[in-house]
Parts: sequence; structure tokens; C-alpha cells
Amino acid sequence: MATYNVKVFISYREGILDPQGVAVEKAAHSLGFEKVKDVRVGKYITMKIEAENKEEVKKEIEEMARKFLVNPVIEEYTYTIEGEK
Amino acid sequence: MATYNVKVFISYREGILDPQGVAVEKAAHSLGFEKVKDVRVGKYITMKIEAENKEEVKKEIEEMARKFLVNPVIEEYTYTIEGEK
Repeated sequence: MATYNVKVFISYREGILDPQGVAVEKAAHSLGFEKVKDVRVGKYITMKIEAENKEEVKKEIEEMARKFLVNPVIEEYTYTIEGEK
Repeated sequence: MATYNVKVFISYREGILDPQGVAVEKAAHSLGFEKVKDVRVGKYITMKIEAENKEEVKKEIEEMARKFLVNPVIEEYTYTIEGEK
């Protein structure tokens, strides 16, 4: 068994309204950061998973995404897996 | 002027309680994902910034982080900058 460091990045799909992103963009503009656009705010989830190998970790993440972590209608996700340092 | 794609990853500092992470971990365990631990939920912000060069983008991000994006007492952040594809 090894421990893997997993990072999952969840964001709204293109075309889905992201009110938090709009709010951050407005804040940026009102504070003088005029050259900032297309701000989107998503989730950045880190976790450790114990598994025999990377393939098992991959399966675990994709199953979690499907079961409760990601809403595929409005969200999309990517992830990275690293061996324990 | 070029457009740069920026990703900012904000997470709670170690030792800071992360209730959303605790909730996700509990959900994982109760759904049978027993080998998942140390779940932390942070923010994943993407944006585009117009600038002359990467150095200018870097300055812009760090200033935004300092002014309103990140609370340094409880949060830490990293970022990546890519030229427009």
C-alpha cells in the first residue's frame, strides 16, 4: 500500500453562469485591476488516498466524482495524482 | 499586449480548520471510500489578464492576492501563468 497525493480541480462548464466569478471580476475592476477578465471560481480539493497503485487511485477518484464530488450537468473536473513525498 | 491564462489555487493553511473538507471526507467514508483522508477544499480561480509580459502578470496576481483575493492569516496560494493558446 502506498499513499498518493491527489488534487482535484472542479470548475463550472463553459456557458454556465458563475456568480462568484462575476463578483471577483467586479471587485478586481473596482480596485483598479482593469485588465482582468473571464474570472471563474471553482473548487480545488486535495486529499490523500491509500492504494496499491496509481490505476486504483484513478478509479477511486473517478468513482467519487461520479457519485458525489462533481455535478456533471454544470461542472467539469480534472485531477493530478502524485506519489507520497 | 498579450492575453495570459492564469490559474490561482487557494487553500487553507495547515492547522486551520476546514469544515468543507471535513464534510467531503465524511461523505466519502460513508459512501465506502474508506482510504481517503486529509481532504481539504480550497478555491480554484481562473482568469485572463492582458499584459505586456509574464512579469507584469505576476505582479498583477500578487497585488490582487494581497489586496482582496487571499486572506494570508488563514490561506495560502500558488498560481500558474500560461500564454494564450
